[in-house]
Amino acid sequence: MTGVSRRQLFGLTGAGVALAGAGVAAGIGVDRLDPGSGAPATASTVDFHGTHQAGIVTPTQPNLHFAALDVTTKDVGELRALLRTWTAAARRMTAGQEVVTGGAAEAPPGDTGEALDLPAADLTLTIGFGPSLFDRRFGLAAKRPPQLVDLPLFPKDKLDPARSGGDLCIQACANDPQVAVHAVRNLVRLGFGVTEVRWSQLGFGRSSSTSRTQQTPRNLFGFKDGTNNVKAEDTGVLHDQVWAQPDDGQAWMADGSYLVARRIRMHIETWDRETLSGQEQIVGRSKGTGAPLGQTGEFDQVDLDVGGAGGVPLIADDAHIRLASHQTLAGARILRRGYNFVDGSDGVGHLEAGLFFLAFNRDTRTQYIPMQQALSAKDAMMEYVQHTGSAHFAVPPGLTPASNWGDGLFG
Amino acid sequence: MTGVSRRQLFGLTGAGVALAGAGVAAGIGVDRLDPGSGAPATASTVDFHGTHQAGIVTPTQPNLHFAALDVTTKDVGELRALLRTWTAAARRMTAGQEVVTGGAAEAPPGDTGEALDLPAADLTLTIGFGPSLFDRRFGLAAKRPPQLVDLPLFPKDKLDPARSGGDLCIQACANDPQVAVHAVRNLVRLGFGVTEVRWSQLGFGRSSSTSRTQQTPRNLFGFKDGTNNVKAEDTGVLHDQVWAQPDDGQAWMADGSYLVARRIRMHIETWDRETLSGQEQIVGRSKGTGAPLGQTGEFDQVDLDVGGAGGVPLIADDAHIRLASHQTLAGARILRRGYNFVDGSDGVGHLEAGLFFLAFNRDTRTQYIPMQQALSAKDAMMEYVQHTGSAHFAVPPGLTPASNWGDGLFG
Ligand code: HEM
Ligand code: HEM
Repeated sequence: MTGVSRRQLFGLTGAGVALAGAGVAAGIGVDRLDPGSGAPATASTVDFHGTHQAGIVTPTQPNLHFAALDVTTKDVGELRALLRTWTAAARRMTAGQEVVTGGAAEAPPGDTGEALDLPAADLTLTIGFGPSLFDRRFGLAAKRPPQLVDLPLFPKDKLDPARSGGDLCIQACANDPQVAVHAVRNLVRLGFGVTEVRWSQLGFGRSSSTSRTQQTPRNLFGFKDGTNNVKAEDTGVLHDQVWAQPDDGQAWMADGSYLVARRIRMHIETWDRETLSGQEQIVGRSKGTGAPLGQTGEFDQVDLDVGGAGGVPLIADDAHIRLASHQTLAGARILRRGYNFVDGSDGVGHLEAGLFFLAFNRDTRTQYIPMQQALSAKDAMMEYVQHTGSAHFAVPPGLTPASNWGDGLFG
Repeated sequence: MTGVSRRQLFGLTGAGVALAGAGVAAGIGVDRLDPGSGAPATASTVDFHGTHQAGIVTPTQPNLHFAALDVTTKDVGELRALLRTWTAAARRMTAGQEVVTGGAAEAPPGDTGEALDLPAADLTLTIGFGPSLFDRRFGLAAKRPPQLVDLPLFPKDKLDPARSGGDLCIQACANDPQVAVHAVRNLVRLGFGVTEVRWSQLGFGRSSSTSRTQQTPRNLFGFKDGTNNVKAEDTGVLHDQVWAQPDDGQAWMADGSYLVARRIRMHIETWDRETLSGQEQIVGRSKGTGAPLGQTGEFDQVDLDVGGAGGVPLIADDAHIRLASHQTLAGARILRRGYNFVDGSDGVGHLEAGLFFLAFNRDTRTQYIPMQQALSAKDAMMEYVQHTGSAHFAVPPGLTPASNWGDGLFG
């Protein structure tokens, strides 16, 4: 479907009209103007309903706003009601509509308004439940999926508790940052008194592609990222390694997935002083083309054994793509969906830049965790990065027009 | 002109090629792929050269990376050389090229690479000099423009020194955040040992329009912002109120301008609980259409006297647009070019959201300062905002292909 103009809906309720006693506001001038060069928003929408939640295999949109929330109420009924309210609001916003239509001038607006003139911009809203939600507070302990473990502390982790954890998460992806921010802000607003923002992260530039229809983007080390990702088209791998199956332990999670979020600070200044061939040996790929070392094309098969001049493998023992490869991890893969970030500066003269790593897998215990163990222990790239935030969420399955985000949890 | 593909230049130098001893890397697959839905970057460029620096009246691009830097060297020659290096790099990057072409595999890359596949995306790079640059360190005191005052502390200011001041600033605006971030990051990299990042700010959604060709965007209070801005087409007002003139005190600043940057935290949660008519009275405009109270169209003339039911003016005494109007400020206007921001969360349950206010004027002493005094003292909106950062820069005039950013300063 095409985006409904939010402005048309809202424009009719302007209090300027009410105050002046004049007729319906005309809104002239707007529709005749060009949105200006480079206006990034597109009118297209991503279907909110489906077997799986949108925002996982959806071709990665260029802008992210991710929020982790804590539940502050003790009343489980309020939480349940909020999940219903959020679902209704998400259904509307992902269709390019205001949170609610109209509203009276003498009440707070039902929509905060900053996306009024903007289309749906391919907005997806994806929800997840953190391990702490299954503690004693809400009687949900028996519903906790075995895959939703408390993540271990990995070697060299330097986690900030203020950037880690969370009872709930909302992942908003869109073609326009204002649309993603608007969506999170309005869900947060609807949660007032029930939830609070624990941490939030903006991201740009989609550091990983999730579909073969997309050109591979680059991360802030300047390398193509997502070349060897699990992609929307890999239905067999998705079944085996991304989507929870009915007999995985908690049937309510079937067709859902498990999301690991890691805020990874990248020491770009140190990286920038490394030679080109040094950078390429760390990654195991060529920087310009993205080809695996020893090959020529970006999508050429990785050959971990291909030798260099002295018979030594071109892809080093501590190269990132060797350690992260399913070939060295008993077949384990993950679907990466991270974003680049720059959060101002670090106070000691550098940009606070990095990768907000997001990955989906079917069982974090046998996929993400061993992969991270291998990387944290041996990856040559670890010298240039630092994990500063960490969280884990159970992402429930997709919805029908009649169901809501709380159904499995409370069903 | 159209963007040169950076990848073509860089792809030829991949060390994967050197290591494998194979031919020139093919880079296959890339050019055949669609950039994906909603890819925001456009290939168009904004001319780096001109009477004025680009990035002031240039129709506001949707993404900002702003950095304030301190000069750490004591050697004025190094500073002078850096401004020359920066100019050359900016000239290339705004044309969609790498910072430098090629480079050897055994040296650190001359370009960090994350924009290799991206076009120019209308990148503009605008430089400014802070008051502190004219202290004793570099013998520049006699060059300090009288307009470049130390800003006073305004009522209710709550400034963080770590988000204020700076010897230099770089304003990067583009249609793609990755292009803006890449540009700042590479200039910062070139400044290693000479300058350090003092603070940096990302912005999105251009909170003000600067040209009549643009649709007016909305800020995070949900209101159209920029309706009554000074615009690129207002050449008379630009001459009188934005561009420094030759006899303004420092002839080297002629055709330059003065930039005020204010990081303004917006308490969106409190705002969101205000009624629609309350919000509209605070601003003085209708939220839906953007029309001034008492009028019906966004671009209708503001009438500060038009009365409501009891003869009381519809636009209140403490309304934002009354206090900021040139009609109440002896004719003073400014060119606003701000951006929305969300910097994670504030640690006490809220999003850290706001407006990164940027404004250009010819004489900050008689334009921005009295305007801010009026707003800080009386604006009803002050209850919902807090100024947390502040800086002031002299923005030198535009360049020719033969000149550089340091010419006026050191001429
Ligand atoms: C700042 C941190 C990181 C950077 C800069 C980075 C960068 C890269 C790059 C450039 C590639 C090669 C292109 C590709 O196939 O996508 C890659 C591949 C990969 N990365 Fe990372 N990565 C980071 C963190 C991680 C983490 C934390 C994990 C998981 C624990 C991970 C898992 C993978 C996997 C599975 C691959 C594909 C390997 C294969 O070829 O089979 N990466 N990464
Ligand atoms: C978070 C802070 C602010 C918000 C949300 C805000 C919002 C607005 C809005 C909605 C308008 C009406 C539309 C327009 O004409 O652009 C406006 C107008 C204006 N604002 Fe602000 N503003 C803020 C801060 C400031 C500051 C700090 C200044 C300067 C010191 C300023 C100066 C102006 C001016 C000059 C106008 C045009 C007034 C006229 O109609 O002549 N604003 N602002």
